[in-house]
Amino acid sequence: MRTVEPARQRDLRERNLATLLERVASADPAAAPSRAGLAAVTGMSRATVSALVDALLAGGLIEELPPPPRTGAGRPANGLRLSGSRVAALGVELGADHLVACVRDLTGAVRARAAVPEIDRTGSPDLVLGASADLAADVLAQAAEQGLHVVGGAWAVPGLVDAVAGRLRVAPNLGWRDVPVLDLLREHPVLADLPLAVDNEAALAAVAELWQPDTPDAPAAPQSFLLVTGEVGIGGGVALGGRVLRGQRGWSGELGHVTVEPDGPVCACGARGCLEAYAGQEALLGRAGLPVRPRTSRGAVGGTPALLRAAAEVGHPGVLEALGVAGRALGVALSAAVNLLDVDAVVLGGACAPLAPWLVGPLTAELEERVLRGRLLPVDVRVSATGADAAVMGAAALVLQDVLDAPASLLTA
Amino acid sequence: MRTVEPARQRDLRERNLATLLERVASADPAAAPSRAGLAAVTGMSRATVSALVDALLAGGLIEELPPPPRTGAGRPANGLRLSGSRVAALGVELGADHLVACVRDLTGAVRARAAVPEIDRTGSPDLVLGASADLAADVLAQAAEQGLHVVGGAWAVPGLVDAVAGRLRVAPNLGWRDVPVLDLLREHPVLADLPLAVDNEAALAAVAELWQPDTPDAPAAPQSFLLVTGEVGIGGGVALGGRVLRGQRGWSGELGHVTVEPDGPVCACGARGCLEAYAGQEALLGRAGLPVRPRTSRGAVGGTPALLRAAAEVGHPGVLEALGVAGRALGVALSAAVNLLDVDAVVLGGACAPLAPWLVGPLTAELEERVLRGRLLPVDVRVSATGADAAVMGAAALVLQDVLDAPASLLTA
Repeated sequence: MRTVEPARQRDLRERNLATLLERVASADPAAAPSRAGLAAVTGMSRATVSALVDALLAGGLIEELPPPPRTGAGRPANGLRLSGSRVAALGVELGADHLVACVRDLTGAVRARAAVPEIDRTGSPDLVLGASADLAADVLAQAAEQGLHVVGGAWAVPGLVDAVAGRLRVAPNLGWRDVPVLDLLREHPVLADLPLAVDNEAALAAVAELWQPDTPDAPAAPQSFLLVTGEVGIGGGVALGGRVLRGQRGWSGELGHVTVEPDGPVCACGARGCLEAYAGQEALLGRAGLPVRPRTSRGAVGGTPALLRAAAEVGHPGVLEALGVAGRALGVALSAAVNLLDVDAVVLGGACAPLAPWLVGPLTAELEERVLRGRLLPVDVRVSATGADAAVMGAAALVLQDVLDAPASLLTA
Repeated sequence: MRTVEPARQRDLRERNLATLLERVASADPAAAPSRAGLAAVTGMSRATVSALVDALLAGGLIEELPPPPRTGAGRPANGLRLSGSRVAALGVELGADHLVACVRDLTGAVRARAAVPEIDRTGSPDLVLGASADLAADVLAQAAEQGLHVVGGAWAVPGLVDAVAGRLRVAPNLGWRDVPVLDLLREHPVLADLPLAVDNEAALAAVAELWQPDTPDAPAAPQSFLLVTGEVGIGGGVALGGRVLRGQRGWSGELGHVTVEPDGPVCACGARGCLEAYAGQEALLGRAGLPVRPRTSRGAVGGTPALLRAAAEVGHPGVLEALGVAGRALGVALSAAVNLLDVDAVVLGGACAPLAPWLVGPLTAELEERVLRGRLLPVDVRVSATGADAAVMGAAALVLQDVLDAPASLLTA
């Protein structure tokens, strides 16, 4: 059975701080809530709200908007919104062929970004992580110049991560095994005192999807979805009820190794007929009759989705055939995912996003046939709007989400 | 984003009551905790613990053990344990060919049980639910005679359930569509005033698995697993971190409709190559060359697992072949489930439990090939010990879990 921690007076304050911050964060920007408005929607007393709002203001987590013009009797109420001027978070991603780091402020705005193109991440963990620490130092310096206080950092890596121990257990597409990521990072002086986390790139891309702002052109992702990610391989990030589902060990969402055909082609993982063996980059290139580079020089395949897209646009028959097969395979594996996880939507990200025009048709046909609840409620299929930086954006958002969930720890620190 | 409710003084008491009850419930029976012990492990003051323990005692949720013999100076502390003498819950299951109802007390002990054999649940919902209400009245009367206070009841049904609205949306193996289960049940006077719930039978069987007591012969299920259920069809219940995973709408765990071969045989749901088309009862009988009864007289196939087991025991070649195919298909679908959900174990329940000796070999071989984390940490494959009553036991446990999670509501009522 679960263990439950005892509740104390202090917890009340902590929970109420989080409640108010959450209300401010989720408010429509055109209707920033006032202290009185927060008291009304939360049921807290105005005195309690005022004291807690003052603490959040003092901590730089929220800010007051200028008062609106006087329209009648009484003083108009100041609206409150998240502040982008103080608290910020670092995200770093080990991409297939590059490194990228960013700092986002509490409103989600990217305040610094730096990248190293054409790094081979299958190299020694020491070297690759060292280069990522240097990149982190670069964006941290940019953030400091803007007066931002970076409260933590997260690294996005492929494969099975033990987030508690800070280790990468196994990453077939990197050739890394049991790498103490956080221990290696902490050897770098600029990171020594910063709270650090490491997590799976697909799970972090799903966090980014949840943090995606609504715009008329790109409505934000639903609160429950499976996000298809990956550049070379295929990963998956799962969200349920607005939160990323981690599974027992944070190893959920391994969509790339769901079986499509039990006797299908051999996958890099050793099994037969995995989704990756139909819809991974090497499989797509091979089926299309295009040259596949050996797995050891992975650094050079970064442009493959663009190449495949260009070939599909001019009607290359081999590429169109390969994308049809990949779309059907994706549909079979995603149907299993929807049947097992009960998510409302499938979001195509990573290398699938630019190829979506050719994947969505066959994919949707399989979902319509195979998802049990499909006739009651069709599965929403959409393309991610987070772009190539999804994992690094999600890494920073993971740290920011912790701030929103538990602001008290930051105020007392 | 999620909304968070404000915390108030009252919440502190409610959470601390739940914390203490949880500690008492999860304690080793040989080491029932005392008030002082509870204060030590929870960090609450002894006065707070005493006041809350008195409330739980007064509500009949816990009881004091007789004091141990005096061994030295001071008064020995009385141990506390859950009480089986007052609070109880009703569970009812619409089985493939029978109805069953039970009442369990707060310790999980079954205090009343009644069954109607050989009912055809594909009949009119009015008739089937009416018969189940009569059965519920029977066990409620038995419970009342024992002085038990039944605080709620839950109905286990197959298919996609809208638990909030109390409706069965669709159940392919019943032929029911959009049945207002709770509204129909509330028409029966004996149920009119009882808080009622309806949920999917596989999810409830997973609750039962979590409530299974440890014994030396049958260790309790791990805290994260996929439970394979089903009599005619195949269902699945998912647990993560000791809680049943519901998905966005309570429709997770639809293992029976995970694709095993995209071009495989047609399933009752209309898709090709679902697990059910390899490992469901009709598929097993058909492949074994045994007669398959038409789907409309489903009430008569209840003895099929026993028949198949008996045939396998004497080496019937068709049955052995069919079980081998079913085991492999189960392994393919379960590998997808472990890759996507990150559960530690697979538990074979329902019709799979008696057939496990012939299924586990081919099933495990597939898991070993197809689960990405399998070489780091093999998947635990075990047979459920809950038996044929899993769903009805879980239905009652669902109500009891609500009591353990929120005892305050019962104390103030």
